[in-house]
Amino acid sequence: MNRERISRVIENMKGCGLEQILVSATPSVYYLTGRWIAPGERMLALYLNADGDVVLFANRLFAQAPEAGMELVEFDDTEDPIALLAARVRPGRLGVDKVWPSQFIIRLMEALPGLTPALGSAPVDEARMCKDAEEIARMRESSRMNDEALRRTLGQLREGMTELELQDAYLRNAKEVGGEGGSFTPITCFGANCAEPHHDNDGTRLKRGDSVILDVGLMHRRYASDMTRTAFFGFATDEQKRVYDVCRRANEAGRAAVRPGLPMCEFDRAARRVIEDAGYGKYFIHRTGHGIGLEVHEHPDNSSTSQTIARPGMCFSVEPGIYLPGSFGVRVEDLVVVTEDGCETLNALPRDLLIL
Amino acid sequence: MNRERISRVIENMKGCGLEQILVSATPSVYYLTGRWIAPGERMLALYLNADGDVVLFANRLFAQAPEAGMELVEFDDTEDPIALLAARVRPGRLGVDKVWPSQFIIRLMEALPGLTPALGSAPVDEARMCKDAEEIARMRESSRMNDEALRRTLGQLREGMTELELQDAYLRNAKEVGGEGGSFTPITCFGANCAEPHHDNDGTRLKRGDSVILDVGLMHRRYASDMTRTAFFGFATDEQKRVYDVCRRANEAGRAAVRPGLPMCEFDRAARRVIEDAGYGKYFIHRTGHGIGLEVHEHPDNSSTSQTIARPGMCFSVEPGIYLPGSFGVRVEDLVVVTEDGCETLNALPRDLLIL
Repeated sequence: MNRERISRVIENMKGCGLEQILVSATPSVYYLTGRWIAPGERMLALYLNADGDVVLFANRLFAQAPEAGMELVEFDDTEDPIALLAARVRPGRLGVDKVWPSQFIIRLMEALPGLTPALGSAPVDEARMCKDAEEIARMRESSRMNDEALRRTLGQLREGMTELELQDAYLRNAKEVGGEGGSFTPITCFGANCAEPHHDNDGTRLKRGDSVILDVGLMHRRYASDMTRTAFFGFATDEQKRVYDVCRRANEAGRAAVRPGLPMCEFDRAARRVIEDAGYGKYFIHRTGHGIGLEVHEHPDNSSTSQTIARPGMCFSVEPGIYLPGSFGVRVEDLVVVTEDGCETLNALPRDLLIL
Repeated sequence: MNRERISRVIENMKGCGLEQILVSATPSVYYLTGRWIAPGERMLALYLNADGDVVLFANRLFAQAPEAGMELVEFDDTEDPIALLAARVRPGRLGVDKVWPSQFIIRLMEALPGLTPALGSAPVDEARMCKDAEEIARMRESSRMNDEALRRTLGQLREGMTELELQDAYLRNAKEVGGEGGSFTPITCFGANCAEPHHDNDGTRLKRGDSVILDVGLMHRRYASDMTRTAFFGFATDEQKRVYDVCRRANEAGRAAVRPGLPMCEFDRAARRVIEDAGYGKYFIHRTGHGIGLEVHEHPDNSSTSQTIARPGMCFSVEPGIYLPGSFGVRVEDLVVVTEDGCETLNALPRDLLIL
């Protein structure tokens, strides 16, 4: 277990008025205990309270070594883990991890009528927002590998290949560079499909004049990378070049604005303004970015409404895009980590206009 | 939407004393509506009540076509979907899908103080247990493909290859035969690692005398396959041959026992008895099988405590195993679907002793 992180979470609990919480998300349990337990349909919970009690409830299938300072409550498939939890949780308010399956909270409420469940992820989510040195090192390495995997994938563009073939090519490259697999299903799409920010890759074939969006990421030692480059295949029209240039400048402005002490919405504003000023504001139809770390999407939110104050160690994407329905789309995405006086960009792959 | 399945669920709701339920699991929503929506961290709920109201609440990102008989409530990231739900759900008891993330039920309880959440997956889970003709056709095809992918993978065993390389080989084969990807992370392990039923594949290298477990499955048109074969590499000792023969006979006995009208525990008993009679009872450390369909693990449970009465259309695995710690392990797994007078085995790959 990581005592420093647990202490930070207990501090955060006090700030939220929570005396006790259940942490259940696999990445959050890993963050606090160093144990990666993917329980499937079985129950998993790490109980923390303001007195400093730390109790891990886990099925014996995922056998865990005992450790000083952390109580281990194991059970098998014939035992009722809710009864074990109910014997330990105190009546009153209980912060519950946002992703804990409802079946467990409903049964725990039935077993403990005096229990009032409350949203309880914030203490851990807030701790996870600011990465420590070990985490930043892994994030850096994950993005360095991702740069290389994307670079190799660009070199494999061939006329007539399908989006799904390009997806496979990226995933192979991600493994070849040492990644442990994709951090999400890559988006590798062509032409008009690029105008849908969440396009599901399909059998569309690459043809000259297409924009090509590669929105890709991999996992490295549990930490995710995520980046996007847009290229043009064969040639680019003047409009494509213009839109690309606007998007690239928005990405640069969004990153240049990052520094500690400002609300995140300022960074969204900086990127969005470039696109609005160029007359494409209504084609930038999503937030500028999202936090990333053990999960591809975590706190902080990098959007027009995000009041989160940037602090050193926060890690998030800057990914403005312009989507022209039926025609083409462009997105340029990098990860940044907030430093003492600005930010470090984790991706080093060039952002120059690329016609392949 | 599938009116017949929805009617069956509403019938089941009455049996459970539920007047209204929220369905949220992606496969369950698909089963009832034909719409596959993977909402990530966003809210998804299909509301059903005993009056026959069917209302789908989904983020506009996953834009859905309207359809007669189903109300569509869409929202975007700036709207509060819980407020929309609260305006529609009736006070009193509400059945809630077991996997709905706790954040939603906690916020819905705060918005509707008169609400009493209850476990509410049973009406849909029970409907999903008995596959209809369309589903059985897909299950058959998924297992037929899996047979072929496993057959090809057996042909790729090479001395010195790692478990992870064999895993990749299976996943490639699964795609080549037309599968849409693995239905779970394959278990492709060697020697002593075979004695752990849930071994995580690693860099262990294949050597002569190893048992090789291939526990693999793929997805085909949303339906999962799952099978296990055990081979021996180079040679098999007399003990390995004996243990294999016991396990194969347990698999056969477990399948031969299946017919409608009996409790599932009888099928577990039939398989387990063969292993116990051979003196290996304490080395068969898990249930005989699990239901399968849209998900790799669903109802019914095929275990020593399962009182579920088998009915035509139920689909589950029969997968006895014998695990000798530090030495080797054997498992032989097939999927069956209950018929009017017995069962159909969905896998056709031979179960004869295989020394490669």
